[in-house]
Amino acid sequence: MRVGVIGGGQLARMMIPAAIELGVDLRVLAEADGMAAALAARQVGDYTDTETVLAFARQVDVVTFDHEHVPQDVLHAMVDAGVAVHPGPDALKVAQDKLLMRRRLSELGLPVPDWARIESAAELDDFIAVHGGAAVVKTPRGGYDGKGVRMVRSAAEVGEWFTTIAEDGRGGALLVEELVDFRRELAQVVARRPSGEVAAWPVVETVQVGGVCSEVIAPAPRSAGRLADVAADVAISIAEGLGVTGVLAVELFETTDDRILVNELAMRPHNSGHWSMDGSTTSQFEQHLRAVLDLPLGGTGCHADWAVMVNILGGPEEGTLVERYDEALEGHPTVKLHNYGKEPRPGRKVGHVTAIGDNLDDVVYEARAAAAVFQD
Amino acid sequence: MRVGVIGGGQLARMMIPAAIELGVDLRVLAEADGMAAALAARQVGDYTDTETVLAFARQVDVVTFDHEHVPQDVLHAMVDAGVAVHPGPDALKVAQDKLLMRRRLSELGLPVPDWARIESAAELDDFIAVHGGAAVVKTPRGGYDGKGVRMVRSAAEVGEWFTTIAEDGRGGALLVEELVDFRRELAQVVARRPSGEVAAWPVVETVQVGGVCSEVIAPAPRSAGRLADVAADVAISIAEGLGVTGVLAVELFETTDDRILVNELAMRPHNSGHWSMDGSTTSQFEQHLRAVLDLPLGGTGCHADWAVMVNILGGPEEGTLVERYDEALEGHPTVKLHNYGKEPRPGRKVGHVTAIGDNLDDVVYEARAAAAVFQD
Repeated sequence: MRVGVIGGGQLARMMIPAAIELGVDLRVLAEADGMAAALAARQVGDYTDTETVLAFARQVDVVTFDHEHVPQDVLHAMVDAGVAVHPGPDALKVAQDKLLMRRRLSELGLPVPDWARIESAAELDDFIAVHGGAAVVKTPRGGYDGKGVRMVRSAAEVGEWFTTIAEDGRGGALLVEELVDFRRELAQVVARRPSGEVAAWPVVETVQVGGVCSEVIAPAPRSAGRLADVAADVAISIAEGLGVTGVLAVELFETTDDRILVNELAMRPHNSGHWSMDGSTTSQFEQHLRAVLDLPLGGTGCHADWAVMVNILGGPEEGTLVERYDEALEGHPTVKLHNYGKEPRPGRKVGHVTAIGDNLDDVVYEARAAAAVFQD
Repeated sequence: MRVGVIGGGQLARMMIPAAIELGVDLRVLAEADGMAAALAARQVGDYTDTETVLAFARQVDVVTFDHEHVPQDVLHAMVDAGVAVHPGPDALKVAQDKLLMRRRLSELGLPVPDWARIESAAELDDFIAVHGGAAVVKTPRGGYDGKGVRMVRSAAEVGEWFTTIAEDGRGGALLVEELVDFRRELAQVVARRPSGEVAAWPVVETVQVGGVCSEVIAPAPRSAGRLADVAADVAISIAEGLGVTGVLAVELFETTDDRILVNELAMRPHNSGHWSMDGSTTSQFEQHLRAVLDLPLGGTGCHADWAVMVNILGGPEEGTLVERYDEALEGHPTVKLHNYGKEPRPGRKVGHVTAIGDNLDDVVYEARAAAAVFQD
């Protein structure tokens, strides 16, 4: 069983342990030397170049991804060449274009914030006026970790974005959404095989700082019952409705008036599912491999009542994570550390820690304290 | 942090996932191409050749092992060259020579079966005569998985062994031990850092078939209290007494008259500790890396009341493990499968499965049933 992963970041890296245990020959097409998944990198090359990607794809049984940025023409070239690609181009297209995503989710009848496709400052100001004087503007493509997303009270605040979309030659438009009054953010991670089987982990609570995921609590506190059912139903409906194969992460808002709205989608293992590596019977990385290989999915039960994951963002201002190991490991022997093998840099995700246990206060404390050792 | 592992078998393979998560650059010196740990193999070479091993060792911070067969002169050459070697030559010497092992354990006052060093058939027959008409004869070196071990009622049954030791030019002798009347076999796995810290998992029950480990139950049923304390004390005394660094597995007999006797030692991760990968906060492979790097050790608590590991011995008579995945994974979604990437061959350890849970009958059933899918 040979699985090719396009992209050599930490998501590809964390697929390697699962691949080893399953006996999967994992081969990574990395963007550059020395990336997080370098151990499995068989090739370094440009994922936007069709010939490079086709040559890589011919060596494997299934192609999957570390990110959603492979261009549609490259994806279709693989499919046309008979390569199994999971998730496929049609599903990935929806993850690549936030306007298309909003349209397809609306068509599927799923709960989303009010939204509109806007081409001009006047349209944006109109939307703002009827939505309480503020809105969230998003560039349809290329945004991640809060980039390409801006809360505005006037179209003038994103004037340069209108200039950019006018120049990019793709019939440019922006996505505008109501500013959702939310109580908290949640995420629902599921997996789906090509033959249809789906599996869901418990819905989790996510904490974002500056648009970047900082902390995840699994399951989301006070989510048992209706909230858990709704979140799982929404994510499975999306996976089935869009034909997603592999892991799908659905970021959700829990509004102050008790609605669940879909925020973003990721068609790959996701930061909100990292806790599963240490807290669940099946990690999202193992599940992703099982799903893209169309193997039966694994159990999604939990080892303890609570798992809390805290990202190591940036890392030490000077030195490396390893220099802090004595302090972190001695003080927190039950916390699991995941080092992505990346150079520390402000704001960069360089690792994460997970704690599990049956007392949420203790688990939160342990995970935060262990992560804090690595931050200045 | 660069760790070099001499030997490319499944133990080295299972260190790779732990190395990835800890951010350890693991480099394997494999005996041949295509071995279980091939993904991390930086070099293929002869571990009995000093120059080969020294060249490999110079690339890493610490050298450790997949097996105990590296010759003493090669080990000492590394130490003399300033390489950190864990476990060190003096400890490994005891694991390499069962006569020396019995002598050192006796000197440490640890409980062992009655034993003697014998050089002749007459000495062996005398030992048998005073030990109830039967004894276990072992070649001091090179035995594993039941090889080099024979139960005899007369020296004539191992006549050819006396010929061999007379010819090997090392002042040959055999080890003879009383045939222990045991209720069951146990194993105690511990880890020890160079700076002294030790950690112990719960004592486990092991089931051997034809001298090969078949099944492990963690913790050993009815072991809470005195039995667990004695087993941990014995193993920690051995680790400290022999100066073992890294993981140490101590195979034990629980006799019908309620004594605990030391059977064999392994100074590396061991089959009796595989359950820890899925059942404990810290796997024996992560703990081994932490120990040989002199990092603080991880917690050894359990995710559930019981973990049961069953080896996949031999595998299918025809075909591969992968061809049975649909049946195994669909029928046993909570069982964790570990495929060593080796060709099936009668009696060969090609993988294992682990189930965990709070009802021992269910856990045993699940693990055995999942493993059985892979055997004809």
